[in-house]
Amino acid sequence: MPVGTSGTVKALLHRDLEDLGVEILLANAYHLLLRPGDALIGRVGGLHRFMGWSRPILTDSGGYQVFSLSDRRTVDEEGVSFRSHLDGSEHLLTPERSTEIQARLGADIVMAFDECTPYPVTAQQARESMELTHRWAKRSRQRFLELRDGADESVTNLGQAQFGIVQGSVFPDLRRESVEATVAVGFEAYAIGGLSVGESAEEMIDIAGQTAAWLPPDRPRYLMGVGMPDDLVEAVARGVDMFDCVLPTRNARNGQLFTRSGPINIKAARFAEDFDPPDPGCECYTCRNFSRAYLRHLYIANEISASSLNTLHNLHFYLDTMRRIGEAIVFGSFETFRQAFHQTFSRRRQV
Amino acid sequence: MPVGTSGTVKALLHRDLEDLGVEILLANAYHLLLRPGDALIGRVGGLHRFMGWSRPILTDSGGYQVFSLSDRRTVDEEGVSFRSHLDGSEHLLTPERSTEIQARLGADIVMAFDECTPYPVTAQQARESMELTHRWAKRSRQRFLELRDGADESVTNLGQAQFGIVQGSVFPDLRRESVEATVAVGFEAYAIGGLSVGESAEEMIDIAGQTAAWLPPDRPRYLMGVGMPDDLVEAVARGVDMFDCVLPTRNARNGQLFTRSGPINIKAARFAEDFDPPDPGCECYTCRNFSRAYLRHLYIANEISASSLNTLHNLHFYLDTMRRIGEAIVFGSFETFRQAFHQTFSRRRQV
Repeated sequence: MPVGTSGTVKALLHRDLEDLGVEILLANAYHLLLRPGDALIGRVGGLHRFMGWSRPILTDSGGYQVFSLSDRRTVDEEGVSFRSHLDGSEHLLTPERSTEIQARLGADIVMAFDECTPYPVTAQQARESMELTHRWAKRSRQRFLELRDGADESVTNLGQAQFGIVQGSVFPDLRRESVEATVAVGFEAYAIGGLSVGESAEEMIDIAGQTAAWLPPDRPRYLMGVGMPDDLVEAVARGVDMFDCVLPTRNARNGQLFTRSGPINIKAARFAEDFDPPDPGCECYTCRNFSRAYLRHLYIANEISASSLNTLHNLHFYLDTMRRIGEAIVFGSFETFRQAFHQTFSRRRQV
Repeated sequence: MPVGTSGTVKALLHRDLEDLGVEILLANAYHLLLRPGDALIGRVGGLHRFMGWSRPILTDSGGYQVFSLSDRRTVDEEGVSFRSHLDGSEHLLTPERSTEIQARLGADIVMAFDECTPYPVTAQQARESMELTHRWAKRSRQRFLELRDGADESVTNLGQAQFGIVQGSVFPDLRRESVEATVAVGFEAYAIGGLSVGESAEEMIDIAGQTAAWLPPDRPRYLMGVGMPDDLVEAVARGVDMFDCVLPTRNARNGQLFTRSGPINIKAARFAEDFDPPDPGCECYTCRNFSRAYLRHLYIANEISASSLNTLHNLHFYLDTMRRIGEAIVFGSFETFRQAFHQTFSRRRQV
């Protein structure tokens, strides 16, 4: 899922996303709550109508951004008080309020309100944070069912699915306990949260894999905030179905392009007269039409189109990787694909 | 002609321009000379190949930017010495050098090197500047013919046309003299320069109209750096065929959208919950899919897509205006069109 924080994927138009075959977008409840406000979006009939996007949307609960972006936050049993990073205004997010905001936004998939446990923490801190997330999960689900079954007027999409979020930091016994507690609440599907927050890539994939294996096999498993292209391949190998990550879009704006052999940085002097496409053989609009030399020129000249062309390529690379993974699974050749992918792709190819 | 200063129209992709029906782009020799350099562009076979744009391109001579952007310039008979506004490096532009740079860039239309007379000036200053432009016009043409007929290796496009530029400030007798001197040199076609530099809109259109009437009727007449939508209608009424201007693109990035009734500023608070398209009835991608409220949100959230969607709309508005003008002329209804246009469009509708 490409990330469309404020109701747009940065540097692209919706028609570019449709052209890339984007099936579902992620938007951030935290950002939309602060600007333009969930009430305004609700009045026009929800986020799909507000932003003119008819394909599925997932909204996160706001929990992660409250912990990573806001100022002066206070967590208690009720929820999180915080100040907006935009204008300092005071807000309170609770499981109920997050669920109500997401009902007004009307995304197709909404997330339970959780505490994203920081890293590193002691096992005791991880347990306390996890147990708070479990109590919040129950409250999120209860409010979700009340709103849906009560056909509350503020609900702009009666077909919403709600995903629960598993926490437990890097402790396998806590992860297992969290899976059991979250599945016991009963959501449409489940996400693995609290990873990619500072632990090593090896630890991340190990914990994600163990957790995925305990989750119900008949429901999508969503690994939040991951990751590098090779992380996706390894996480799928361990049972993960869905991902979101700002890497392809954010790094594109900083000049990093993902290629089959690894990331390259387009601002490098060695590309000044390199008239090959960024990733020879890639079929995206950028690679079919433009050279590394031209993209480097646009980046150095600080042109907006540098961000757009780089983002187009990176999203194509990520979506194409997921499509190849899907095809390999269907054809029973996933292990071959996985080995071939790692033989070619090195995340250390960065220049 | 949309302006693509550094080899890209700011905030759009080439496919967006093709979709808008852009027939010809303007690029700036001054900017490309400084970055990435005409030598580099020449080595890959010219600007069309460097930027991946197969439709026609016009390059200006660099004269205007030297006067408006560069630091510490010195003008003498030979040409203009100046320092780059980017890195302070020293450069010399002469009629010969400008023509050579444009030959390497390989645009389909190139411009003679002129001095854009500042405003206001005395008649004597205007005469001296104009006479310098006439001497430079001869040198530009001579070098152009040498390069073309000598099939110099640095020429990347043997089908170039070169336009001469008429100066003379706001003095009709000088303008007439400049037309005669420039036509005597003998270019493929002619441009009216030195307008829209500070004089009133009325004076601009009056001088442009008088000058256009003296130019050869069988050659395109190009009014440089103009203008507002109603300027285009009035200039065509006086015989002008071609325009370039940064207004539709630059103002789009500042939130100004041109509509049939006049410009609006999308950041105005009154659009916060206005779910109508920017210009109801407009058939551009932006107006077909997005509301003023969403565009205002994107602008206030500082999203790149605000610039892209606003630019798409404004270029559509300008190109559509020119297409309507063309059709009205073909059908003999230009006067009716002109009156209807002015009845609806007011440049003072700005909010």
